[in-house]
Amino acid sequence: MAGNTTLRVIPLGGLGEIGRNMMVLEYGDDIIVVDVGLMFPEEEMLGVDLVIPDFTYLRDNKDKLRAVFLTHGHEDHVGALPYFMREFNAPIYGARLTDGLIRVKLQEHRLLQGAETHVIQPGDVITAGVFEVEFFTVAHSIPDACGLVIRTPLGLVVHTGDFKLDHTPVMDQHTDLIRLAQVGAEGCLLLLADSTYAEQEGFTPSEQLVGTALRNIMVNAEGRMIVATFASLISRVQQVVDAAVFTGRKVFVTGRSMIDNVAMARQLGYLNAPDGVIIGVEEMRNTPAAKLVVVTTGSQGEPTSALTRMANGDHRHITITKGDTVVLSASPIPGNETAVYRNVDNLFRLGAEVLYNRALNTHVHGHASREELKIIQSLLQPEYFVPVHGEYRHLVIHAKLAESVGVPKGNAFVLTDGDVLEIDEESAWTGERVPASYVYVDGLGIGDVDQHILRDRAHLSTDGVVVVIVTVDKQTGKLERAAEVLARGFIDVEEREDLLDRSKQVVADSIKGVDHYAEFGDINVRIRDAVSKFLYDETRRRPMVLTVTVEV
Amino acid sequence: MAGNTTLRVIPLGGLGEIGRNMMVLEYGDDIIVVDVGLMFPEEEMLGVDLVIPDFTYLRDNKDKLRAVFLTHGHEDHVGALPYFMREFNAPIYGARLTDGLIRVKLQEHRLLQGAETHVIQPGDVITAGVFEVEFFTVAHSIPDACGLVIRTPLGLVVHTGDFKLDHTPVMDQHTDLIRLAQVGAEGCLLLLADSTYAEQEGFTPSEQLVGTALRNIMVNAEGRMIVATFASLISRVQQVVDAAVFTGRKVFVTGRSMIDNVAMARQLGYLNAPDGVIIGVEEMRNTPAAKLVVVTTGSQGEPTSALTRMANGDHRHITITKGDTVVLSASPIPGNETAVYRNVDNLFRLGAEVLYNRALNTHVHGHASREELKIIQSLLQPEYFVPVHGEYRHLVIHAKLAESVGVPKGNAFVLTDGDVLEIDEESAWTGERVPASYVYVDGLGIGDVDQHILRDRAHLSTDGVVVVIVTVDKQTGKLERAAEVLARGFIDVEEREDLLDRSKQVVADSIKGVDHYAEFGDINVRIRDAVSKFLYDETRRRPMVLTVTVEV
Repeated sequence: MAGNTTLRVIPLGGLGEIGRNMMVLEYGDDIIVVDVGLMFPEEEMLGVDLVIPDFTYLRDNKDKLRAVFLTHGHEDHVGALPYFMREFNAPIYGARLTDGLIRVKLQEHRLLQGAETHVIQPGDVITAGVFEVEFFTVAHSIPDACGLVIRTPLGLVVHTGDFKLDHTPVMDQHTDLIRLAQVGAEGCLLLLADSTYAEQEGFTPSEQLVGTALRNIMVNAEGRMIVATFASLISRVQQVVDAAVFTGRKVFVTGRSMIDNVAMARQLGYLNAPDGVIIGVEEMRNTPAAKLVVVTTGSQGEPTSALTRMANGDHRHITITKGDTVVLSASPIPGNETAVYRNVDNLFRLGAEVLYNRALNTHVHGHASREELKIIQSLLQPEYFVPVHGEYRHLVIHAKLAESVGVPKGNAFVLTDGDVLEIDEESAWTGERVPASYVYVDGLGIGDVDQHILRDRAHLSTDGVVVVIVTVDKQTGKLERAAEVLARGFIDVEEREDLLDRSKQVVADSIKGVDHYAEFGDINVRIRDAVSKFLYDETRRRPMVLTVTVEV
Repeated sequence: MAGNTTLRVIPLGGLGEIGRNMMVLEYGDDIIVVDVGLMFPEEEMLGVDLVIPDFTYLRDNKDKLRAVFLTHGHEDHVGALPYFMREFNAPIYGARLTDGLIRVKLQEHRLLQGAETHVIQPGDVITAGVFEVEFFTVAHSIPDACGLVIRTPLGLVVHTGDFKLDHTPVMDQHTDLIRLAQVGAEGCLLLLADSTYAEQEGFTPSEQLVGTALRNIMVNAEGRMIVATFASLISRVQQVVDAAVFTGRKVFVTGRSMIDNVAMARQLGYLNAPDGVIIGVEEMRNTPAAKLVVVTTGSQGEPTSALTRMANGDHRHITITKGDTVVLSASPIPGNETAVYRNVDNLFRLGAEVLYNRALNTHVHGHASREELKIIQSLLQPEYFVPVHGEYRHLVIHAKLAESVGVPKGNAFVLTDGDVLEIDEESAWTGERVPASYVYVDGLGIGDVDQHILRDRAHLSTDGVVVVIVTVDKQTGKLERAAEVLARGFIDVEEREDLLDRSKQVVADSIKGVDHYAEFGDINVRIRDAVSKFLYDETRRRPMVLTVTVEV
């Protein structure tokens, strides 16, 4: 059975976009899943809360599903698990912090009971059908990040997860180059590697650089210092605590997710702070500014985050004043620039000094740059290569890089979500595709917002809505009285009352001659077209016109 | 009269934002205006086409207006002129290309007749009331860019316009450092200088760098080369033409504004191309790919631009194929990143090689970096300083830079739109403010879209609209029949028909007991609240609910 002897590699998310990472590996009757992430909506996904992978293929192959492996605890790798767990039941494997984070998440969704989660140690090998999956450590911007070595009947597959090569990482977790070299020596059939920074020349700097920068800033800041970063970036918080200890400052933590993560990290031993360094709100109030560091969420300008509230002057405990130094220890994620810089501007307005420039080394990111990617290629020398995690251009550029350092020409496959790569003992090819649409989560609804609804929202957002209510005589189809017209988001109605009055006349004119019984649908279309045209001619705007006919 | 002996500096746009640059200088009974620019709408300005400065202050002081001076022809400096010219009548002064561009614009708006525009040469001095205004050349990303030396009764004011120091500019227009040094020697009262890149360390590279890069890419590209840039960046087009001549390629120009600008620039002598190099569509079709360069608009991902059409596979003349090399000779303007990178991804999908990275020197921008700003400060040694052109953080950083190189502490004023800086012989201060709101242009409407309408559009864009029509008995106020409910942009109505049906029941329940004659307003509010709550409980979405009561 030829169909059973191919290894199938099926990305359901994360290829051709940033976020909702999810990779399916299939061989014969066995399927394993690597990561189940979510994506934050893009600008045109109006009103959408989250985007998750399309589970259709798994739904159709439910009985093959053996296990889920999680590389690390970031939302774009684990955030769709609660939606996944409503439908699928499979053991979930992840390192300790990853497991801790998903248990909190599943608990929130009341899905923890019945979930089978397992904590693994790097080096552990899990058998899942024909697959044997081994975790190895990688350096990334969250503790306990791992990559996977997956033994398949056709050979070894390596999935890097998100990684970089940090030779002096803060929490001492290196990318395990020795294990990768061993795999390379044994022979690597297929490499799947992080493409997020495949555009970036050179090497990504070490986290240590940020520690030094934060310490220098803290030594020189005469007043209070406020550091905003990602709540999951525990190592950054550790560096802030270390610098605070060095400079004799106390640390106050604010922002719900930061408070939760700091508490969890201290409890699990991922964050070390001497007694009395991390203080509560009362003690904070009694600490002189020069002896204080605030660690906060909001580095991405999130509207309800603590930093945004400070910038808007409505944080409960912190009032920004002259003398404060605010450090953004994060780069804006593409799409967040406007919100981030609005905060920066507002903080400046309140008199703070704001440090937000990469040049100051207040942030380094967690992904490998080009020279690091080359090292991974050289260690593994894979026969086939699939770039993962990235927009299309990142994947193309990463594939070219791989071919430039040894992957045989034609063996680097740029896949996007839903593509199926098939590998047998001789060759690899793509052909079939499986469903991999964006699945939108909006409020309680999963997948019930489609392109049609988003188009309507876009239309409404541009020029608003005009509702026309027409009352017609049941018998004659004639207008019973003047139409009612109301508008929202279209034009200042008080200033342009004439416009709505005149559109009533347009309605009347449009159905003149309809003195026989006509279909409501026809009348509605006729009225809608006439009103739309009239309003466009008058204003050059195209509000959505909704017509309702009431028969009396 | 103390009020008459102060120089008043009043920014009406461009300070605290990027775009709609407009500066008012007032002394006694005389007002002059520098630039009348527009701003492209920010993300949350839903449906807005343009944003222009607030002319209220000028409206209130119409009889003082003596002249308008334009520094250069970019939209953010001249784009609001057609709106200005509808209300104000004053002579307009600008260099030759600037004048050419605004005359085209005024012609389009049928405002050219009656407009008094004057072409000046650098060095010309124009008297306007008490002011004497002299133009001097600056290097910027459009030919004929100028700064102004303004002689006032209190001393010399320098306004740089947009500038950088390019020692080897393509069109041979340098920033006139000698004139600036003379002004510095005479004594500079006030400097207004470009802050756009005040964050950027070092020097902005010369345009020549791009010429070399383009030539190298063109030499090595085996197939067709497509270069996208700003239509106004004539010097860049010149560099493409030069590289084409060097490599024996022909140049095809596409994109409406690019075609217009190239024609205009050739006619006025700003673009030099040997006969036969720039070709039409027929000749383009007969030219082998390796002998062809296409110059196009669309470097910002504009939806209807030529490059976007190529990327989407629906350009009339150009079909992207493997072998094409596309060069983005421009950086994404903040806010345009998503659209720009979508094009890049789509061009890669069609098989093109895409070069879009700044590291490749395919673009340099037109504004001075920090070391250049310091040189201007050192040449002029102004007594007072106002940073112009930039978001708030740029202004703060630029003011700090100025104080760090010699502006007396406290003499660098960070103004935002509507602030009034007053200068007399002793000192300078701010106090009074004048109106400087965003004035939105949407279709034919100017200023008739307000925050209220934008809030409605934002609400509509998030969860759509639900319209409830209730027919009640005129006498009893009782529901005559089941309510009609329709929705757009809210939820897939076909899948959730139950939801709309159940909301009809909610309507009925909500007005149960209203058996006496009630005010429609009350009934509407009651229904709206009940339906909103019901829909939120069911879906966790908050569509805009509009209620209409029809009395029969």
